[in-house]
Amino acid sequence: MRYEELTIEGRNAVLEAFRSGKPIDKLFVQDGCKDGPIQNITREARKRDTIISYVPKERLDQMSETGRHQGVIAYAAAYEYAEVEDILKAAEEKGEPPFVFLLDGIEDPHNLGAIIRTANLAGAHGVIIPKHRASGLTATVARTSAGALNYTPVAKVTNLAATIEDLKKRGLWFVCADMGGELMYRLNLKGPIGLVIGNEGSGVGKLVREKCDMIASIPMKGDIDSLNASVAAGVLAYEIVRQRMG
Amino acid sequence: MRYEELTIEGRNAVLEAFRSGKPIDKLFVQDGCKDGPIQNITREARKRDTIISYVPKERLDQMSETGRHQGVIAYAAAYEYAEVEDILKAAEEKGEPPFVFLLDGIEDPHNLGAIIRTANLAGAHGVIIPKHRASGLTATVARTSAGALNYTPVAKVTNLAATIEDLKKRGLWFVCADMGGELMYRLNLKGPIGLVIGNEGSGVGKLVREKCDMIASIPMKGDIDSLNASVAAGVLAYEIVRQRMG
Repeated sequence: MRYEELTIEGRNAVLEAFRSGKPIDKLFVQDGCKDGPIQNITREARKRDTIISYVPKERLDQMSETGRHQGVIAYAAAYEYAEVEDILKAAEEKGEPPFVFLLDGIEDPHNLGAIIRTANLAGAHGVIIPKHRASGLTATVARTSAGALNYTPVAKVTNLAATIEDLKKRGLWFVCADMGGELMYRLNLKGPIGLVIGNEGSGVGKLVREKCDMIASIPMKGDIDSLNASVAAGVLAYEIVRQRMG
Repeated sequence: MRYEELTIEGRNAVLEAFRSGKPIDKLFVQDGCKDGPIQNITREARKRDTIISYVPKERLDQMSETGRHQGVIAYAAAYEYAEVEDILKAAEEKGEPPFVFLLDGIEDPHNLGAIIRTANLAGAHGVIIPKHRASGLTATVARTSAGALNYTPVAKVTNLAATIEDLKKRGLWFVCADMGGELMYRLNLKGPIGLVIGNEGSGVGKLVREKCDMIASIPMKGDIDSLNASVAAGVLAYEIVRQRMG
């Protein structure tokens, strides 16, 4: 099992993290902050032998990802990454053909959070992200996922193309969203499926694209080039939902 | 017409901005400031229905980039707003039934930008936003719209419910995305249509919801409550696209 450091910011969020038993590596408190809520937090921290550092406000401002730290930031080893196997198991337990999102280099944590949120609501069994050149599960991702990170497993892999190859052997078909494909309404998107979403700027990488069985195009009736990555993921995911319901 | 987003500070600069006809989204005036020059400015602001907020000096000091605000700061829009009539005209010129997005209080400029981008690519003829409690066309909106703001007209209205009433007389039907509606695939979304998207936190307001002819629900198969607002807008907009193509 792998862990990635998560930044938890703000008084309620940090206190909740302690109380839920989440393992906190470090607690940073703003110099001179000694009010009730902060004392509750430091008391919880001491109970758990968490290291407390008192730092100037400027330091917290620098560390903050959300800009709303309220004088307290905790580093937690949280949001356990899942294994790809866990995702397939989740599908099996539900008696559903696997439905997996593969994100080929989503860099913006807001997009990653929104896509995990969409994956949860579209009934996908998990999300696979690459280790390199992509956003990990940061505090911003957790926040923009609106809680979905607590339910939808996210696995991190070294080589997305190799993972696709493995999953093909397990019966999955892969569709990526890209220009020059077949209109998504005309594709058969039922059955065990992996939905591949490319990077915000450069789209799906060549190697990954070549592994895909289908290239789906979303109708583009306007003047500009492409949808926002999380919107494109949503539109294509819900075409899969529609076909699965039909 | 394109404008740089500007924070305009100081009495002369703000008064000049109003007199030149530059679109001003918001005017901030220091609490208790009631002298002649300030009154000239608020008079101009009222003429143009600009929202005026009275705030403490400390707030203006924080907002100020120059440190010389003299009790008044204006936020100018990055882009010129269209009229609702321009949107209907755009549809007529293309010989298409009108397809309009109405955003009932989108506050996050990233969401607003992404939705304008989606509106452009889904072939909508324009976007209508309310004056109050909503993001205006800031530089962040322009950037996240990925150029769509150059093509897709955005109109700003005082009363969204009244605008819906007016547009109904022009033949439009209104659908909003909300819980407890009819599954979107089962609705007839062809013909002249207004797609209403609610606020990120609170959804579609009661008054606006009551004016809608249809309430569409997006299938929710997961554990959390709702999609990101810009993803929901995308999914529903593309259901309209699908039905219009069919």
